[in-house]
Formats: sequence, structure tokens, C-alpha cells
Amino acid sequence: MKPRTAFGQHTLPGEYFTSEEIFRAERTQIFHRSWLLAGHVSQLPAPGSYFLFELDRESVLVLRDAGGTVRAFHNLCRHRGSRLCLAPHGEIGATLQCPYHAWTYGLDGTLRAAPNMGDVPGFDPKTLGLKPAALADWQGFLFLNLAADPVPFETALPGLVGKFEAWRLPELRSVHQEVYEVAANWKLFFHNYSECYHCPKVHPHLNKLTPYRNTENDLDEGPVLGGPMWMSNPDGSMTSHGGRCAVPFAGLSPEERGRVYYYTVFPSTFLSLHPDYVMVHRALALGVDRTRIVCDWYFHPDAIGAPGFDPRSAVDFWDLTNRQDWELCAN
Amino acid sequence: MKPRTAFGQHTLPGEYFTSEEIFRAERTQIFHRSWLLAGHVSQLPAPGSYFLFELDRESVLVLRDAGGTVRAFHNLCRHRGSRLCLAPHGEIGATLQCPYHAWTYGLDGTLRAAPNMGDVPGFDPKTLGLKPAALADWQGFLFLNLAADPVPFETALPGLVGKFEAWRLPELRSVHQEVYEVAANWKLFFHNYSECYHCPKVHPHLNKLTPYRNTENDLDEGPVLGGPMWMSNPDGSMTSHGGRCAVPFAGLSPEERGRVYYYTVFPSTFLSLHPDYVMVHRALALGVDRTRIVCDWYFHPDAIGAPGFDPRSAVDFWDLTNRQDWELCAN
Amino acid sequence: MKPRTAFGQHTLPGEYFTSEEIFRAERTQIFHRSWLLAGHVSQLPAPGSYFLFELDRESVLVLRDAGGTVRAFHNLCRHRGSRLCLAPHGEIGATLQCPYHAWTYGLDGTLRAAPNMGDVPGFDPKTLGLKPAALADWQGFLFLNLAADPVPFETALPGLVGKFEAWRLPELRSVHQEVYEVAANWKLFFHNYSECYHCPKVHPHLNKLTPYRNTENDLDEGPVLGGPMWMSNPDGSMTSHGGRCAVPFAGLSPEERGRVYYYTVFPSTFLSLHPDYVMVHRALALGVDRTRIVCDWYFHPDAIGAPGFDPRSAVDFWDLTNRQDWELCAN
Repeated sequence: MKPRTAFGQHTLPGEYFTSEEIFRAERTQIFHRSWLLAGHVSQLPAPGSYFLFELDRESVLVLRDAGGTVRAFHNLCRHRGSRLCLAPHGEIGATLQCPYHAWTYGLDGTLRAAPNMGDVPGFDPKTLGLKPAALADWQGFLFLNLAADPVPFETALPGLVGKFEAWRLPELRSVHQEVYEVAANWKLFFHNYSECYHCPKVHPHLNKLTPYRNTENDLDEGPVLGGPMWMSNPDGSMTSHGGRCAVPFAGLSPEERGRVYYYTVFPSTFLSLHPDYVMVHRALALGVDRTRIVCDWYFHPDAIGAPGFDPRSAVDFWDLTNRQDWELCAN
Repeated sequence: MKPRTAFGQHTLPGEYFTSEEIFRAERTQIFHRSWLLAGHVSQLPAPGSYFLFELDRESVLVLRDAGGTVRAFHNLCRHRGSRLCLAPHGEIGATLQCPYHAWTYGLDGTLRAAPNMGDVPGFDPKTLGLKPAALADWQGFLFLNLAADPVPFETALPGLVGKFEAWRLPELRSVHQEVYEVAANWKLFFHNYSECYHCPKVHPHLNKLTPYRNTENDLDEGPVLGGPMWMSNPDGSMTSHGGRCAVPFAGLSPEERGRVYYYTVFPSTFLSLHPDYVMVHRALALGVDRTRIVCDWYFHPDAIGAPGFDPRSAVDFWDLTNRQDWELCAN
Repeated sequence: MKPRTAFGQHTLPGEYFTSEEIFRAERTQIFHRSWLLAGHVSQLPAPGSYFLFELDRESVLVLRDAGGTVRAFHNLCRHRGSRLCLAPHGEIGATLQCPYHAWTYGLDGTLRAAPNMGDVPGFDPKTLGLKPAALADWQGFLFLNLAADPVPFETALPGLVGKFEAWRLPELRSVHQEVYEVAANWKLFFHNYSECYHCPKVHPHLNKLTPYRNTENDLDEGPVLGGPMWMSNPDGSMTSHGGRCAVPFAGLSPEERGRVYYYTVFPSTFLSLHPDYVMVHRALALGVDRTRIVCDWYFHPDAIGAPGFDPRSAVDFWDLTNRQDWELCAN
């Protein structure tokens, strides 16, 4: 068995969790250069659907255009820099009009109208379309990268390419979302999620379903780290009653059906793939000692539509586990 | 027609509205070196009347002395630096006593009494008067300058000298004040006030009274920028019903009676001179993304004393317009 | 008579009370290098009793071990840096277990158990005991020093050595505590406590009992500064009714019984020794313009146990005086 975390290693010096200066460097060198999970295609059901992704002072508009293509633009009018969309998500219609001076853009980002600007020498609407942001669609999950010249997604996160197809991720929908804000440095959540050494003390209910030594890492290089834990009950799942709360994903092998797969996707995401559902944590560092975690529980539409569908046992199980962990992270 | 704002210009880079470092430079190089509107002589009706002007950590005491002269002093006791006056305005009496160790000053700033200090070698009360602050009275409006060696008011703001005498500004009184605090950089308010290109979209009620192209700048150099807009109804005013809410100022020409004159006085003031009243915005940058705007509606005492005087239509008109603008500035 | 404060001196420039940069230097060069009052032995009545002392991001655990010795440790698990104790004070039991991964320490700081770590190459529990913090017990008052190589207590504060034995400080107990948070720089509290020149204006009730010139300093070098004030009524005390609220400490001379002794112990403490009780102010700089003052009223157990014991007149007297002073410090 390969150990889940390397032994003989030492933890980072304390200042990495408290220094404003180090956090500013992380902002520039990590968050503004990495692929960050923004959402899922299921949040954009129709042309004109959009949601915002906000990081520090950046606001990115992710939308589905008239042809069905998902696009991402900086949410700023090219005239005076006003934000075009204010609500966190919604439906735009056929065009997008700035609330300040009424400049109007198509869903493909082109500037369609700018009142009274026609007579301004040198004014060229073709150079004044919305500024695109780098976007990648990985199995239905939409990642953004705010770098000026981003590393391609497949180069940055090769560990994800071609993985987890059996869970049919592009088809899933979130049935529940919890938003947590915790007074702790973002890296503590990655440490915490990456080991189960704390489970016997902190999560006895979880440790009963997956004893903490039942694990090995199958991805442990680069920014994707993790692997399976095998359940004591191969027909169970991680729920408050220990049983599944939906039929397992059809394409899973018998071995996969008895396991939960946990991965950190540095620096924004945790993926938790269960036989019957997928949970995703999205971490946003709000400050050196403040982190927002958005947690979604995804199920397949077939499961959601099945008679008697009830995801509460999955939600309750992880909400309890999350809160136990956040308390320790904030300590 | 001369355009209200220059075309072909570009807006400031985004960091000028968000960077703490740039804001600190603005504090030092702009706010602590410029003439800033502090108030109006009508706020000092009698000897001993005072009000405070506070900027960052500076507190300036503006008072009327026993001889009727308006003076400004740093609101700090020369002994231990305690603030002498705490309430934002009030009546002092014949002398001013520090609440800490009871040092007492005359309204002319001289140190009159300092208990038990007489026997201290080298103690010289003549060197320990209150420190004066630079003060200018422009048409009854009191401006302060916190620089060690300020540029004279007339040199800094030549555009104001001798202007607007027909509005009899020194005689006016504020009948209403609104205080707004908005989460936006102070320069956005200057941009916003300086153009009416946004009026059709944002202020349809205003654009009906003064269509946005009815304008030209008559002062456009240095820190005073603006000019008239002519009203569709030459007997109207900017009010919620479109008519005047007081008789026009007696000295206005027929042309002036049909216009509103708008000026920004960089970096603290907007003047809006109507045929029947004068509105003044006073902007105070509280932080890089926080601005306080104090708005006063001034009328002539003859108008205030007239039977049936009711300024609400002027207050309501601009309060609505202000709030529409603040929402955009904060976007 | 030697004056209580030197004349002809000038106050510090204003920036010493407002500059974040100077405050950061004070943190490093003063607070993290000085002996700071943390508490009193009476707060640790039995083996396993503890309290926390927190400064900036440091948390120190002060406890009484199984053998009765008072010890101080950094309140951090050696594994991941979690805080071991969370409540500000309490009882530990025989061992101390980290809430995260269940590492367990003895009250002497040794690592007793670390689950599953036995097979890690190079893991040596003897090197992983809790990190001690420098502790001094001066007459029952417990001082901490966070420096890596602290100056010995007796070298740093020679003025305290052997002083005030007649007040039997190690035996006392606090009967009342007030916690104040004031928007003022910490040094202003030292200035304020160090002179009674402000008493006639600010504390007429106090000035009646001890006229402000009834004083001289008997300790005025290094970080301990102060001396006695003699009371108008030699059988009185500093209380709301002017009389004593307990029998005087048995060992005081007749002269000492008619006096109050006031000392600042830089940079954390004020000692106020009355004939019948001892009041202690503990100052903690929370920020450049925010200070917490914890004030305790200590009496001898014999006084506390006497029929009709009522300390309210002492508490009320100083609570009023404190609040008058804090208002001026915050000005």
C-alpha cells in the first residue's frame, strides 16, 4: 500500500498561514495564474444564461451565447469600466446593455451600439468588444484562468485528462449547495482534505464507513493529488445511514462501486466521487485568514427523476463532516 | 457648440480606482495640498460659533471670533495634542478650555492660561497659541488648505474669482442637507458629475428638463470645469415638477434664468447654480473605495421667508438623481 | 519635593500615536521583547489549572503541573500547529490532547502519545515536547517574555525586586475584574497614569482625597516609574466614600497606611497599592489605536472572609476614574 501522505515531511512555517505579504504573493503567483473551478455547464441551460465568477476585484461573466457556445468575458464595459451584470446569475436576453451609458454588446462580446460615438475621430467599435477570459470545459466543469497568457488546461492539470468518464460528469446537476465562510487560511483546507489521519478523532461517523487506513493515492504528482478509499460495506456510500441514496452510476466497475475517490485539484477544488453521487468543494481565498467554501452535491438526472429520490443523507453526512473540519481549520 | 467633455480621451487605468498605494499618494499630493470646501459663513452666525472640518486624522476648528472674524485653527491643544472641541459644531463662549489639563485659549488662538506652568524654565505662552490653518472665504464659502505653505486660493482656483456674483452666494443659507456614504472611489463622482452622456439612460426625468446635448463648458482649464445647460422650459428649474420653487435670484439676466450652471471644483466640490437655488456637493474621500458626499440646498433668505416657501421639489429632484448616480459610481 | 514628571520635556510627535509602521516596530522591539504581566498565581489553584495569554498571534498556555509548579508553553501542537487549549481558562486533567490528530502531552510538556507515528523514520518524541515560554513569578504575579533569548526578569525590572512585601502580594485574590477596550494608542494610557496634573479638571472626586501636588516619585529610572501620593485623610483610602473598605494590610507602617503607591511597569502594567487593597491594570495594545485594559481589584483572603466585606466602593471609585481617563485618552 502506498501511503496517502508522505511521511518524514514537515509542515510549512507558521507565517505561511498568517502573513499578508505571503498571501499577496499567492494571489499574484497562484490564484491569478491557475485554472480555477468557476461552475458547471448545467448552470447555463439556455442561450443568454450566465453566472459571474468573482475573485478579488476581478469579475468574469460566463455565459452561453446564441449558438449554444459557452464563453467567458471580463464583466466590464469597455467605455468606463462599469460592471455589465450585477446579479450573481441570471438570463441576459439577446444583447447586453451597460447600465451607465447604454453601450450594447452581443453575447459573442462584439460591441453593437455606442450612442453618439460615431463622430469621434478614431473610434472603432471592432476594437472595443468585451475582453475574453480563458475558459476550459473539463467534463462539464468550467475552469477559468486569469493569467494574461495562461498555460493550457491540459498542460496544467494532465492528471484530470480522460479521468472519471464513468461518472458522466457533464450530465450531472447539483441538487444542493452549501456556502461556508471560515476564518482560516486556504491551504489548511487542502491539508485537511488530503489526509484521514485526523478521522478517528474528528469524524468517528466517517471512520466507521471508511477506516482511515483503507486508502492509497493513485494521482500524486503535480496539482492533482488523491485516490480511493474503500468502504467497509462495498454496497454502501458516504451518507448518514451508510447506504446509497441513489442507484450507482451505470458505468462503474464493481470495484469502483465499493470505493470513494477523493482528489484535490490545486488550488481551488476538491472532487469527491461516490458510487451514487459526486460532491465538489470550491475554495476561494478571501484573505490570508478567510476562505469561502462552496460545496455542491451533484447527481445524475436519472437519479434525480427516480421516484422517492432523497439526497438528504448525503448532504447531512458531508455537512456534518465539513463543519467538524472547518472548526479545526479555524483553530 | 463646444463639447462638454473632450472626445478621443481614454479613461484612467483601473488601478487608479482600487490601489491603496495610489490613494495614499492622492491623500498626500492632492487632498493635503488643495483648497477644500469646509462650509459656509451662514454656519457661523455669532462670535463663538464653530464647526469642525475633519480629513483623515486632521481636525480643523473653524470659528467666528469676538470681533466677527472667521478663523481656522488646528483643533489640538498645544500641551498634549488633545482635541479641544469634540462636537461637530456648536458655540464656544469667550474662551476655549482643553478638557484634559485645562489649558485655556482665546478665540483668536492665544494661550490665556496654563495651570502651574509659570515656573517651568523656558515656558513661553506666546509661542503656544493654537496653530492656524489656511482659510479662504470665496463668496461666503469657506475653503481650507492643509499644506504647510499653501498656494493662494486665487492662484489655485482663478476660475472662481469674480464669478457668480448674481447668485448672492454670501447671503444664502442651506435649508436642507443630505449626507451620503458610497462604496466608490472619489474620482468616479467627478467623472459622473462632469458629463450628461449617461443622462438619457440613467436620469430620464432630468433629461426631459435639460436634454443632454443642451450644454457647453465655459470653464475648462485648471481645477474648475463646467458650464451651463439650457432648460427646455426657460421659466422652469430642476425640480420634481419642472417649475421653479422660489423666485429667481434678482440679478440674473434673462438668459441666466433659463439655465443651470454646473461646475466641478477639484477635488472637493460640485456647484450647481439654478435660477432659484444653489446646490453644493462636498466630497470627502474616506478611503480608496469609500466617499462621503454632503449635499446642501441653499436659498436666499428672502425666498426662505416668503409665504408658502417649500424646497421639497428641489430636494426630491436631486436626491433621486444623486441616488441613481451613486448606484452607478459604486458599480 | 521631587516633581512627579520632569518639566521642560516635550511630548512625542503625533505620528508615534497614529503610525502603523511605528506600531509594528513597537510590537517587535517592545512587546515581543519585554516582560508582560499575564496573570496571578491565584488563577491556578490546582494541578491542571490553566489560563491563556494571547498577544497578536501568539497564544501561551500558563498551567500548574502535577507537582504544583507553574509552567508556560506555547499553546501549539508540535504536529500541525493547532491550538491545544481553546477556552481562555479552565482545568486540563492529567494530560493534554490535541483536538486535531490526538497527539497527547503531559503537563510538563513532554509528548506522551502520537498515533501511528512510531514507524516514521526519524520520528523522535523526545524532540517534540511543547515549546516552553519564559516565565517569571514576581510576588505571585506571573510575567511572560516572548523573546527568543529574554533578558532575565531581575535585570529588566530591578526596581521591582524586593519591593512591596508588606502588601503580601502572593496571597492576594482578585475579587472583581473590569475589561475595557479603548480606541487609543497604548502609550497614552501610560502618559495618563503617570501624572496627576489632569486630576483637578478631570477627577475632582479623586483630587479631593489626594490633592494632585501631594506626590513624589520614589522609582524613576528604567521601566518602573512612580511613587506615593499622600491622602488628605490618613485613615482613608481611594473609594467612593473616601474611607477604607477593608482593614489595612498588617505589615504596613503608619506612613504607608496614609498613602497610595502608583507605579507604571513598562510596557504592560500599572500597580496601585492602597492601604486596604491592590489594583492592577494590565494593558494590551491590540492595534495602533486600540488598547485593551484589564483591571483587577485584589484583596487579602482575610479581608475577603471578614463579615460584611464589600469592595464595591473601591471598584466604583476606580471604574469612574478609569472611564474619565479613557475618554481623554481616546480624544
